[in-house]
Amino acid sequence: MTELPGSQLIASVEAGGTKFVCAIGRGPGDIVAELRIPTTTPEETIERCLEFFSRQKTERGAVAALGVATFGPAGLNPARADYGYITTTPKPGWQNVPLLGALQSGLGGIPARFDTDVNAAALAEWKWGAGKGVDSLLYYTIGTGIGGGFVSSRGAPLHGLVHPEMGHVRLPRDPARDPFTGACPFHGDCFEGLASGTAIEARWNQSATHIPPEHPAWDLEAEYIALALNNSVCSLSPERLVLGGGVMEQQHLFPLIRLKLAQYLNGYIDSTMILEQIDQYVVPPALANQAGLLGGIALGQAALATLASA
Amino acid sequence: MTELPGSQLIASVEAGGTKFVCAIGRGPGDIVAELRIPTTTPEETIERCLEFFSRQKTERGAVAALGVATFGPAGLNPARADYGYITTTPKPGWQNVPLLGALQSGLGGIPARFDTDVNAAALAEWKWGAGKGVDSLLYYTIGTGIGGGFVSSRGAPLHGLVHPEMGHVRLPRDPARDPFTGACPFHGDCFEGLASGTAIEARWNQSATHIPPEHPAWDLEAEYIALALNNSVCSLSPERLVLGGGVMEQQHLFPLIRLKLAQYLNGYIDSTMILEQIDQYVVPPALANQAGLLGGIALGQAALATLASA
Repeated sequence: MTELPGSQLIASVEAGGTKFVCAIGRGPGDIVAELRIPTTTPEETIERCLEFFSRQKTERGAVAALGVATFGPAGLNPARADYGYITTTPKPGWQNVPLLGALQSGLGGIPARFDTDVNAAALAEWKWGAGKGVDSLLYYTIGTGIGGGFVSSRGAPLHGLVHPEMGHVRLPRDPARDPFTGACPFHGDCFEGLASGTAIEARWNQSATHIPPEHPAWDLEAEYIALALNNSVCSLSPERLVLGGGVMEQQHLFPLIRLKLAQYLNGYIDSTMILEQIDQYVVPPALANQAGLLGGIALGQAALATLASA
Repeated sequence: MTELPGSQLIASVEAGGTKFVCAIGRGPGDIVAELRIPTTTPEETIERCLEFFSRQKTERGAVAALGVATFGPAGLNPARADYGYITTTPKPGWQNVPLLGALQSGLGGIPARFDTDVNAAALAEWKWGAGKGVDSLLYYTIGTGIGGGFVSSRGAPLHGLVHPEMGHVRLPRDPARDPFTGACPFHGDCFEGLASGTAIEARWNQSATHIPPEHPAWDLEAEYIALALNNSVCSLSPERLVLGGGVMEQQHLFPLIRLKLAQYLNGYIDSTMILEQIDQYVVPPALANQAGLLGGIALGQAALATLASA
């Protein structure tokens, strides 16, 4: 063929509920242009993305592929009519928006791939970040909300029926220790309802960023996160667990979470990664807040690779 | 090449803590010989398996491959020294037993594949049973213990760090409703500790098989199973959920579980399978108690297919 996928310019869109980030680049350290756009209406937001890519094309030449890392719920199955759509989001105006199609046709129909923001971040961490060299990686983002993405076996993110919604698992909660009944409008005290930044604020009546490290909020937070990780280890058996998002910028959470996770598993999973090297097993992202945008580039490269092998 | 994998005789071993089942065959309705062997010492049990296969070879000719569906924990990673071993089982005498190697070399070194009993059962249900036509399937066995296996994307069971131990996830328990603190020696009130046949007996002081359908035991049981399925749907997003094992022979559990699962998800997962067709989503096994043994055959066929494509 011609060039390797890694050598070609890729267009990446990280589509979020409050901002879109557009970029062109080839990987970490090789983002050649980037623009943040506030999320307004779908029409206006998508148009501004396409204007950015159009200017970049004039200045730097054509991109080879597009990757879109989106908020959800989103249609990920190419066999279904809602493929490439943001589907049933509560965000006003954004229900049933053909995001991938609008971007892809605006870019002249180049090869493209579409995934959730957390799956894309998992893919980027797996390819270039904290998961380099492992076969499977689970990425949680714990911020305003909670989401999770899982990549296994040569970099294929898990989709399935729709896509994982890992923030909405149910965890044990002891009402005597934690009377807060949860902040999730759908499920009350699911993981997101108990442990997101939103939940922390609602429980303690102060922003998570203002709660000091010695406050009991963090022991409780580490407990819920460790319970969720316990269930992930038992269900998905990932080779690495990456914890990102605003809440996890509280670095003092990591040792607490690792300790509690080991306690919950109680020696049952016979792996040296858990029994002896848990500090290398439960880790912060290596790509920091660029994981989603780099995930878009990784998705575009995957689209090219599929094309090359077809 | 020569024959298709499906046309060749495969040796299957379903290795359990109380019995081994050996068979040769090609798939459902095509098991040509079968033998049940009580699990005694590793030496004696493996020898009796090999005697069976030796007799079958004399009578019916050579088998093309071997599949072993084993109790665990087991070493599934071919890159590690414990590949093919039963590793840290509490079963006396069975720690660190090279089960696959002993069987494979006894069969003349034919191609072989090794997996957990639940992954093998998931594979068989995916290939021939309740999951025909879907891309991903989650199989739970709920009996004396609880285990789960997950198959996705063209039939590859999920392994990861070790392999899933889905019976040991933590679930919410309301002590006012259920004061029983759980039967799991490792984790107390994990899923297995709350909902296995062993747990049901310990909680109600009677065998699950003798508890009548109108007893409150079943509503509680359905609640824990539905909570576990809720978490599985959010984490793994399977296209089908298959529930087997002795406890699930209580068919009246199925409608209860489906109802509660839909309540827990509360419309959040936007899929017609869950919102409208949940009776086709959460289903009993199609292969009944043959799923493990047929899983062994499917594993042997997968070993042949890998060889043919290499």
